[in-house]
Amino acid sequence: MSRAQRAKIDAMLRDQPQPESPPSVEQMRAGFATMMAAMTVPDGIETTETVLGSRRALLVEPAGRSRAGTILYFHGGSYIVGSPETALSLTGNLVTRTGFRALSLDYRLAPEHPFPAAIDDAVAAYRALLDAGVDPASIAFAGDSAGGGLTVTTCLSARAAGLPAPAAIVAFSPGLDGTRTGESMDTKAGIDPFFTREGLQRTGAMYLAGQDPRHELVSPAQIGDLAGFPPMLLQVGTNEILLDDSTRMAARAREAGVDVILDVTADVPHVFQAFTGILDEADHALDRAALFLTQHVHPGES
Amino acid sequence: MSRAQRAKIDAMLRDQPQPESPPSVEQMRAGFATMMAAMTVPDGIETTETVLGSRRALLVEPAGRSRAGTILYFHGGSYIVGSPETALSLTGNLVTRTGFRALSLDYRLAPEHPFPAAIDDAVAAYRALLDAGVDPASIAFAGDSAGGGLTVTTCLSARAAGLPAPAAIVAFSPGLDGTRTGESMDTKAGIDPFFTREGLQRTGAMYLAGQDPRHELVSPAQIGDLAGFPPMLLQVGTNEILLDDSTRMAARAREAGVDVILDVTADVPHVFQAFTGILDEADHALDRAALFLTQHVHPGES
Repeated sequence: MSRAQRAKIDAMLRDQPQPESPPSVEQMRAGFATMMAAMTVPDGIETTETVLGSRRALLVEPAGRSRAGTILYFHGGSYIVGSPETALSLTGNLVTRTGFRALSLDYRLAPEHPFPAAIDDAVAAYRALLDAGVDPASIAFAGDSAGGGLTVTTCLSARAAGLPAPAAIVAFSPGLDGTRTGESMDTKAGIDPFFTREGLQRTGAMYLAGQDPRHELVSPAQIGDLAGFPPMLLQVGTNEILLDDSTRMAARAREAGVDVILDVTADVPHVFQAFTGILDEADHALDRAALFLTQHVHPGES
Repeated sequence: MSRAQRAKIDAMLRDQPQPESPPSVEQMRAGFATMMAAMTVPDGIETTETVLGSRRALLVEPAGRSRAGTILYFHGGSYIVGSPETALSLTGNLVTRTGFRALSLDYRLAPEHPFPAAIDDAVAAYRALLDAGVDPASIAFAGDSAGGGLTVTTCLSARAAGLPAPAAIVAFSPGLDGTRTGESMDTKAGIDPFFTREGLQRTGAMYLAGQDPRHELVSPAQIGDLAGFPPMLLQVGTNEILLDDSTRMAARAREAGVDVILDVTADVPHVFQAFTGILDEADHALDRAALFLTQHVHPGES
């Protein structure tokens, strides 16, 4: 255990200058890009610009020997900020640990493109992979934060479109409830060093643009039907107001007869896997995610 | 996924002759020994009889190169039946996957020795290891079923006795609630191919011998305080009336600030890890347990 590391990360996150007024969307995007650029990108990967469906994607591959398998990755950023580049530490670490390639999607963001634009782009990307002949048994969906939400909602939307399920889902601190009714929204207020209810309501309003959050593709932890879903790994920290998005999603998955691992690390913040190299729990969690992926991603077994 | 394997295991378990009247304790012990002797013991282990505290134990070691680390293992069997020999498939598979040694304890059984004899023996075994100079950071508690319950109750009892916590806890389908108040006691009735409420009440009455189940060391999923506990991995199937022993224990662990993984496999029975070799999920679960153990068992880091 690394209680000292956990405390240091928490203190570091709390020691950030707080803006006096809510930042603009452009300020949020620039600030997020700066913060995520500080995360460690592992050696041993190669990146290539590509297109998936109608959107840009970043192909992240092992520099050396690779294994057959594709991680379709959805970056975080509240559906407002972020890009494949801001998630490169996470995708890179999954790629080096599994030997699989990742395709990290630059889906459309709000407020310019509200719900369900991001999900539509994600389904189109998945469909493009299938149309190219990629076996769904060799594809996993993975993502963090809002992108963790996309792993589930894209699977729901793909099912509704008649597409086969992917082989596995890995979600880091997923946002899975636009109604914000989890108990942790209150019990973890002030404990979460990143998020407040007010902040999530501000970005959530941009994403929804007046649409009802009581929709399966906005709040799957509340009203999602996960029948037929592939095995799921949900990793989350206890210092998160989004904690109960994962605990409720896991309960719904169990009730739907889905294999589901609810992997909770104490006293770590939202998407703590990004602190690889300075937080042992980040590396441990990534190793567990990689084992889970290699257990379920098997070309030719669909 | 192996839906066909899962269905075959379920059918196999249901195709057992049912006795017309409740079996005697001796019949239960013989029947359990016969059933567990059918489980695959991996190659590459060596076993040695030893003593731990005041009880016999079976030392299970890798035949070849080993790593520093000790799994103190508690076999299953409702506190009435079972021995280190009946758990040899499980201990052997953990040993070959981790390189650690396991010490599997032949704790006293009810009805001859009711609660808390088993826990007293387990704490005495742990104390004997510590007294011999074994670093608690190199010791994990692991167990299945009633022995999964012992992983938690032994840790509680050791804490009360002023002993340090072990490095990790791994529990396969643990029994953690003598009050039998989990929802799955009813929702999984008939789905569970092994257990009925009546059967658990019969063996539970032998274990308690009139004592109150509302005790932290009998029902930790209901009333246990897990403050200071090491990282826990709980693996359970959805075809178990004991499912909610694990879901409630995981919730209590999260609330206590404990790292906890609730690892649920759908449509598999109680202690499905014993079906290694004929059920892919068994091997996958054991591999995840082994990774978890190697992440946390580190001599010299206490």
